[in-house]
Amino acid sequence: MSIHGKNFIGNDLSAQGDKSNKIYDINSNIALEGDFSHATSNEVSKALDLASSAFVVYKQKSQIQRAVFLETIAEEIMNLGDELILRVMSESNLPRPRLEGERGRTVGQLKMFANLLREGSWVEATIDTALPNRAPLPRNDLRKMLRPLGVVSVFEASNFPLAFSCAGGDTASALAAGCPVIVKAHSSHSGTSELVAGAIIKAVIKCDMPSGTFSMVHGSGRVVGQQIVMHDAVCAVGFTGSTYAGMELYKLANTRKHPIPVFAEMGSINPCLFLPSALNDTKKLAASYAFSITLGAGQFCTNPGLIIALKDEKLEIFKKDLAQEIEKVKPATMLSSSIAKAYKENKDKAIAQHGTTVIAQALEDGMISEGKAIVASVAGSEFIKNPTLQEEVFGPYSLLVECENKDELMQVITSLEGQLTATVMGEDYEMDEFSSYIYALENKAGRILFNSVPTGVEVCHSMQHGGPFPAATDARFTSVGTGAIKRFVRPVCFQDCPVSLLPLELRDENELKILRMVDDSYSNESL
Amino acid sequence: MSIHGKNFIGNDLSAQGDKSNKIYDINSNIALEGDFSHATSNEVSKALDLASSAFVVYKQKSQIQRAVFLETIAEEIMNLGDELILRVMSESNLPRPRLEGERGRTVGQLKMFANLLREGSWVEATIDTALPNRAPLPRNDLRKMLRPLGVVSVFEASNFPLAFSCAGGDTASALAAGCPVIVKAHSSHSGTSELVAGAIIKAVIKCDMPSGTFSMVHGSGRVVGQQIVMHDAVCAVGFTGSTYAGMELYKLANTRKHPIPVFAEMGSINPCLFLPSALNDTKKLAASYAFSITLGAGQFCTNPGLIIALKDEKLEIFKKDLAQEIEKVKPATMLSSSIAKAYKENKDKAIAQHGTTVIAQALEDGMISEGKAIVASVAGSEFIKNPTLQEEVFGPYSLLVECENKDELMQVITSLEGQLTATVMGEDYEMDEFSSYIYALENKAGRILFNSVPTGVEVCHSMQHGGPFPAATDARFTSVGTGAIKRFVRPVCFQDCPVSLLPLELRDENELKILRMVDDSYSNESL
Repeated sequence: MSIHGKNFIGNDLSAQGDKSNKIYDINSNIALEGDFSHATSNEVSKALDLASSAFVVYKQKSQIQRAVFLETIAEEIMNLGDELILRVMSESNLPRPRLEGERGRTVGQLKMFANLLREGSWVEATIDTALPNRAPLPRNDLRKMLRPLGVVSVFEASNFPLAFSCAGGDTASALAAGCPVIVKAHSSHSGTSELVAGAIIKAVIKCDMPSGTFSMVHGSGRVVGQQIVMHDAVCAVGFTGSTYAGMELYKLANTRKHPIPVFAEMGSINPCLFLPSALNDTKKLAASYAFSITLGAGQFCTNPGLIIALKDEKLEIFKKDLAQEIEKVKPATMLSSSIAKAYKENKDKAIAQHGTTVIAQALEDGMISEGKAIVASVAGSEFIKNPTLQEEVFGPYSLLVECENKDELMQVITSLEGQLTATVMGEDYEMDEFSSYIYALENKAGRILFNSVPTGVEVCHSMQHGGPFPAATDARFTSVGTGAIKRFVRPVCFQDCPVSLLPLELRDENELKILRMVDDSYSNESL
Repeated sequence: MSIHGKNFIGNDLSAQGDKSNKIYDINSNIALEGDFSHATSNEVSKALDLASSAFVVYKQKSQIQRAVFLETIAEEIMNLGDELILRVMSESNLPRPRLEGERGRTVGQLKMFANLLREGSWVEATIDTALPNRAPLPRNDLRKMLRPLGVVSVFEASNFPLAFSCAGGDTASALAAGCPVIVKAHSSHSGTSELVAGAIIKAVIKCDMPSGTFSMVHGSGRVVGQQIVMHDAVCAVGFTGSTYAGMELYKLANTRKHPIPVFAEMGSINPCLFLPSALNDTKKLAASYAFSITLGAGQFCTNPGLIIALKDEKLEIFKKDLAQEIEKVKPATMLSSSIAKAYKENKDKAIAQHGTTVIAQALEDGMISEGKAIVASVAGSEFIKNPTLQEEVFGPYSLLVECENKDELMQVITSLEGQLTATVMGEDYEMDEFSSYIYALENKAGRILFNSVPTGVEVCHSMQHGGPFPAATDARFTSVGTGAIKRFVRPVCFQDCPVSLLPLELRDENELKILRMVDDSYSNESL
């Protein structure tokens, strides 16, 4: 299969524009196959008009029909075989096992949402039956469920070319919700996006979904991305990436005549609180944190970028143990040359801050395209004063904040920005003593975890990947797990609705056997 | 009891400022008792600092403790007795039966949220137990539930001095969620607010909740309101009122360093689609719509401000019948002189639009403080072109849009702005024929109702009061019914959390017997 570089305007390929971009191998600088045609304003409009028309049809598809569609997308992605893996390897510089795992996750997410639809209860069907004889006023028959919002715009992430990109969690959850999707491909892995988009379009056709249910366009965020976000047809935005780009989209969407929700999952430094007892086995702790800090060249949104501890003799031993572990880490190729460059700049800026000392670094410097692991330390009193120390350094970097005493520890915690995760390391016997610190930490994060590392995000019902600003633009939602579907739906109440117009989920006969709240009680029964 | 006019800064009364306002009887222009001291910047800060500290304690209160607190507020409001009813009558010009009903609704809402907390399942507890032997990677123990956001700012509404004000739905749902509340009193019924705030503070003390769990301040939206919305401690805003004021708050909150969700329920004209068969009994239809248009001087957010129908001989008869009904309506005193003035201006502007004709009006002109009922009509072709015709005229006004044919009807529907409600009138046999129009209408509203009038909002689980912009700033939430609590919570995931730190709702032993999703299945059992 050759890479054609065209946009997917609904089911049609299109390359009307005169701008394009190629992708270059990070080390050899040789162009990979494909010249990616940036979508013109006309192409973007056409995709969104198609999406609007598709919504009218797609929103009426049953949950089962949407489940089959998602399962077919998963199949078609697997059908791409090794061609997909090879392309994404060459575009992302990530190793094969990681990418095979990520493909598994991507396909798994599609199937997870298909299962959610087959089960069906997620729509929160709620029925209050009529009370015609109630005094002083009768009650109408009221039935509510979650219904799709409309067309969703998805921006691909750089660090997950499969799982947070073309057919990633945002697309899967929006399609599951009943919303057509337009994807803006990431310029660093556009070939991967093309292959996956092709698989989705095959599924659109096989499942007889209307053209416009899915589109994918190439182009810059500033031109194509902005046009999409400002288009009347678009009802919501899903984004994973930098705080800067996420906030640009968020602010832009708020300048619309009709503002729309932008769910942006942005930066996080994922603070890890080491209670004194966590340092009982400094060697083990150092090994597991060195591993997590440098996993995937530190290019995970849950990378432990901040460690907070009370000053202690054992902390000095931990620092030495950590230094030994970090020294051994081989620099790894980063996702792109721009990310490698940004890592060096941001890391240099971070360690140049007042009072900051490097306490551990990899022995090998590595090539220009590689990220060299570094851990620095700073006093709690400096950290509280200097917000720059809370800026994410995307890559294998972490900062240890050493607190003089418990008061300073509480100040460090309360000064934290919103985070995706917060971690507590320590023995059970110390948890009660530090409970107020742990509760304060909970206020800052979407997920609080104990005696583990924050990297590794399980895709399941109970996952929360999102958190108080600036980790995400709206802490009330998640971008990972089945809860992600809630971003793209809204409750609609049907009052005294004739049965022929009532969605299946709300009819007296509960033929889907979903869990519903009927007259104050949960039930899977028919009325 | 005399009206002191002071602010409630947590449990303390305070009047440090040099600005104040009085409230005047709409007809006699005589000042009512009370001189309402506008909160100073210092007082507002103090209230919010107290709220921040209170959050640390209040969020840890059990659902049962919060339920008792809400029930105690309800009791204390009833304990105010007739003094409250008399004060709100004199401030709002609404009749006693309406206000006794509204007090019942207010107290009912508090009890409804108390019942929701006593039942407890609303927290959406979701548990995925550990799979230590899973290959290739084990799964951690993950448990998620909804947790309070933080301090909530509530702005009182003018048209519901009790049910959407000091102890109204926003306050009740925020306190139920575990969030401290700061209320900005409405300047047209500040005495009512003072009495109700006093009742809430009694409950705070009786239930041993921390001072700062509730505060109420007087002052202008532009000064005091802005200061609250911009304060770091505030995590969310609840507002019901005009599009203009709602959008000011919404935009302001987005200029914060950390933007916060503003749930503003703003204007709606509540389109009512009359299918041809709806006109089989024009007399009955005219009587019910004349009643709904003029109910409470048209000062309901679900007032039917727009009727859409196909041109037809029977529509001509309906217009005459409606005219007869509207003629009989006695002008009623409006909520305030500024609302009465705005009604006259907005109504005059509406009927001066090109192609608009008055088809029905009350015979009596009424006093300057009263709203005179008027219904106008306009051709569908004019309506599509002129967005001014979609502006809400708050008062007893409605516009009939007469469509030439079905194409024009579809254009009128698709041109509609987002709405709180949409209504379909017609016989069952016509519903299928018009299903595509009805589905198009569903896209525009939070609640779609059949063969009824939109006024009358049931407070229950299945209510949706909110809708696509500009009806509300976020269609994914409701401000009426138990769902309103979801505005002020966020999911938090606890990973491998020691049982002593785990909220009761997530522990193995399900002592609250709440419905939880455990390993993909819903269950009320313990693990």
